[in-house]
Amino acid sequence: MGVTVSLVLNIERGQSQSTLQNQLYVQIRESILSGTFRHEMPLPSSRRLAEDLGISRNTVVLAYERLFDEGYLQTQAGVGTFVTKSLPERCITVDVPPNKARERIAPVVLKRPRLAFRGQRLQFAEKGAGRPSIDFWYGSSNRRHFPLKAWRKLLVDNLSRTSTNLSDYGSPAGNLELRQALAERLGATRGIRAAADQVIITAGAQEGMNLISRLLIEPGVRVAVEDPCYGGAARAFESYGAAIVPIPVDNEGIDIAALEIEPAVLAYVTPSHQFPTGVTLSLERRQRLLKWATTEGAYIVEDDYDSDFRYDGPPLMALAGLDRSDCVIYLGTFSKSIGAGLRLGFLVVPEHLVDSIVAIKSLMNYGHPWLDQIVVAEFIKSGGYERHIRGIRRLYRDARDALLSALKRYFGEQYISGKYSGMHLMWSLPPSLAPANKFAETALAHDVGVYPIDAVGAVDFGGVWKANGIVLGYSSLSANQIEVGIKRLADAYSGRTSRRRAR
Amino acid sequence: MGVTVSLVLNIERGQSQSTLQNQLYVQIRESILSGTFRHEMPLPSSRRLAEDLGISRNTVVLAYERLFDEGYLQTQAGVGTFVTKSLPERCITVDVPPNKARERIAPVVLKRPRLAFRGQRLQFAEKGAGRPSIDFWYGSSNRRHFPLKAWRKLLVDNLSRTSTNLSDYGSPAGNLELRQALAERLGATRGIRAAADQVIITAGAQEGMNLISRLLIEPGVRVAVEDPCYGGAARAFESYGAAIVPIPVDNEGIDIAALEIEPAVLAYVTPSHQFPTGVTLSLERRQRLLKWATTEGAYIVEDDYDSDFRYDGPPLMALAGLDRSDCVIYLGTFSKSIGAGLRLGFLVVPEHLVDSIVAIKSLMNYGHPWLDQIVVAEFIKSGGYERHIRGIRRLYRDARDALLSALKRYFGEQYISGKYSGMHLMWSLPPSLAPANKFAETALAHDVGVYPIDAVGAVDFGGVWKANGIVLGYSSLSANQIEVGIKRLADAYSGRTSRRRAR
Repeated sequence: MGVTVSLVLNIERGQSQSTLQNQLYVQIRESILSGTFRHEMPLPSSRRLAEDLGISRNTVVLAYERLFDEGYLQTQAGVGTFVTKSLPERCITVDVPPNKARERIAPVVLKRPRLAFRGQRLQFAEKGAGRPSIDFWYGSSNRRHFPLKAWRKLLVDNLSRTSTNLSDYGSPAGNLELRQALAERLGATRGIRAAADQVIITAGAQEGMNLISRLLIEPGVRVAVEDPCYGGAARAFESYGAAIVPIPVDNEGIDIAALEIEPAVLAYVTPSHQFPTGVTLSLERRQRLLKWATTEGAYIVEDDYDSDFRYDGPPLMALAGLDRSDCVIYLGTFSKSIGAGLRLGFLVVPEHLVDSIVAIKSLMNYGHPWLDQIVVAEFIKSGGYERHIRGIRRLYRDARDALLSALKRYFGEQYISGKYSGMHLMWSLPPSLAPANKFAETALAHDVGVYPIDAVGAVDFGGVWKANGIVLGYSSLSANQIEVGIKRLADAYSGRTSRRRAR
Repeated sequence: MGVTVSLVLNIERGQSQSTLQNQLYVQIRESILSGTFRHEMPLPSSRRLAEDLGISRNTVVLAYERLFDEGYLQTQAGVGTFVTKSLPERCITVDVPPNKARERIAPVVLKRPRLAFRGQRLQFAEKGAGRPSIDFWYGSSNRRHFPLKAWRKLLVDNLSRTSTNLSDYGSPAGNLELRQALAERLGATRGIRAAADQVIITAGAQEGMNLISRLLIEPGVRVAVEDPCYGGAARAFESYGAAIVPIPVDNEGIDIAALEIEPAVLAYVTPSHQFPTGVTLSLERRQRLLKWATTEGAYIVEDDYDSDFRYDGPPLMALAGLDRSDCVIYLGTFSKSIGAGLRLGFLVVPEHLVDSIVAIKSLMNYGHPWLDQIVVAEFIKSGGYERHIRGIRRLYRDARDALLSALKRYFGEQYISGKYSGMHLMWSLPPSLAPANKFAETALAHDVGVYPIDAVGAVDFGGVWKANGIVLGYSSLSANQIEVGIKRLADAYSGRTSRRRAR
């Protein structure tokens, strides 16, 4: 330890611990930087130095720790503490305060590689503070209807029983129990015959779009989408270089005749409840769409986002259930039926695509939280999920009825699409109320949220829908809120046309 | 209801309910398909038909439901039940049993679009049944050390208090509370100065690789990686079309001199504990790497996967902490410190890349389970996380000590790298024990799992490591298990060299 004599320290005692510690830190660092203190030199033990300097050992330990943290010191087990090996002076980063650092680098224009990404950020208003008191936002499940009791029990039970699974990596394709439960449920409710291995668990439908994009899209590949289209789909495909081919939607869904003359390798559709218009793809068109895909050798992506909520009319069999040539990739989500905060969805892919999709998924991420997956699997298997769906379906239907009734009472007959199912409908405003963005502004001024189709993330390629289309989500509102909200809109407009003056 | 007389049904009574129901279903469907029963014709109510046929109403309801599910029937609210509108006969999918269906489509060779994806599936052995009783698998946290009590409390508390957040979409970049907690922690423990908005929550580090790939990689772009390299990184970059440039690793980490003569837009490194060799990148090389990136205008991806576990020597400041030209993208994960089943990690990106990364993330998925994020945030903020880390660090260090001691006792001096930190070390087998794959096979025959570097998902481009390198993970084993495991290996080899014969 004789060598440590060369460490000349000049500590002013009687200072606060942090000041002493800082003096020590600065002086040792300077000794290292000046070369006084070199690699082969061991530091005195903290006990010894504290004694030598007549300061508390803790002060020395803390100063040493900082020097460790900053890479000046290292220990060799059982031997001692040393200056870090081969630490050249020029290597030491001068500790500049953040604002100084920024000044210092500001004038340096660094050359940077060109960014490969040229997509657009998906923008949609997030729920939260600053939203109107009555908010016809779309696609939110009702907070009060979250199956809290069942969830808590399943979480706690599974955490206690098998928390060990939280320590390990699982299959990137998802928990097998959940995949099996889903395969069975989809057979029963959507007519889809799929083995568990065809079901791939995703972080919601959006991740599914990415898996499909990576599977099929190369720059320039033509992808047919509905016009208007769910933006999350169109923007994702576009970001992988797809050439988007918008196909018009009418009141029977996507126009297959238009699709038939537009070659594409992929068609993205929302047959149960077209987004955002809400129309249902007719059975005839479903069959024709499948025939198109079979003839063209194309794939169909069926986004079945809110098919659990059908109030009137037949729940038409999913395209994936009608498919006999393995051309449909089915997208499902728990964001509508349980909650978007859960971030779970799934793909059902034809058997010949399973290996490729699992390969992509294994590169994309290693799957989803184990606990959430097992909770959902057990919720389904126990029958709790089906009961939950039935319960909220009733509530949503009541909310829909309240909305249709209020619209009729306050505005008379209106053109409404998408009312037979889902969590929203679309109101095509008459000329006296259009344009939609103006209408939404007026509504907001009366503390009511209603949304033009671009505000809910729909892309209107032809520009024919956004002028009049207003999306009204009703699934998170009570009948009373709906009544008050629609009345406020009516009052706002009756005030304007001076029949009655708003106070 | 007179029209319904044309529905001629021939039901054999006295059968089981399901048989009656099936007769009814088949006959009504045939009436529809044959055109006897057309759209304008209303069906009798289930009550009426049940009475007419003298069967239970439930039987009729179930048969109707199946016809609904398959799209043959629809209801018109308040009017009645009808055959689905415009249902052309040719549209009806014949219900073929699954095996028949497969036969039927087998001979039809469909043309399909060329798959865009040409990457490789990430393969690594999943933990589970069939693994040896003593398994030196790498990177698994110890199941017994999962912070179960704290977790259960945080889960239940947060679920009850604010379960409503489970109903809504959150920011794709992650929960702000968690991002803030991480920004603070990274400042204190890794010297990284970052604002909360620079922290992006990911589904583990692997998703981070994908975000970075989409940001920077176009086909042909050169990406430098360590050789040997973590396969999850190399395979992900490759799958986006990167030209991989392997740069050799020696006992100070990646060879910067070799990197300096190989232009690349991105260098992927694991400076704290190189994967799989475990070597630490020296401070001198860290500085030189940063200088290279600044001069080249390149980015560095710093994968700091197990930096929470450093047992000896200085925890060298992260590259992201030394970076003064905003060229380091930092990857972190909770898979090692809490558990891989949690599937949470994070990126810290330079400020000028935040918008682009968030845009990519918004297209990739809408973020991660809200509940898990808030639990981790509160775990960090409460100090529980830090205590947990300290606790397991002690346990892992003890396990490492046990492993080093057993290796020395049973095999004498060996070349071991990566022992100062992390959850695994690498043993370079001497010629008497090599090759590594043979050694692993012998170990397995004695119910001990040890892993050549390719078995743990490392890619050995130059082919110099895999012959001798054996990865030994110790974090999920007790000192006793480690002792027994290494002894079994020694016994196996002493038996072979006939000093002692294995029974």
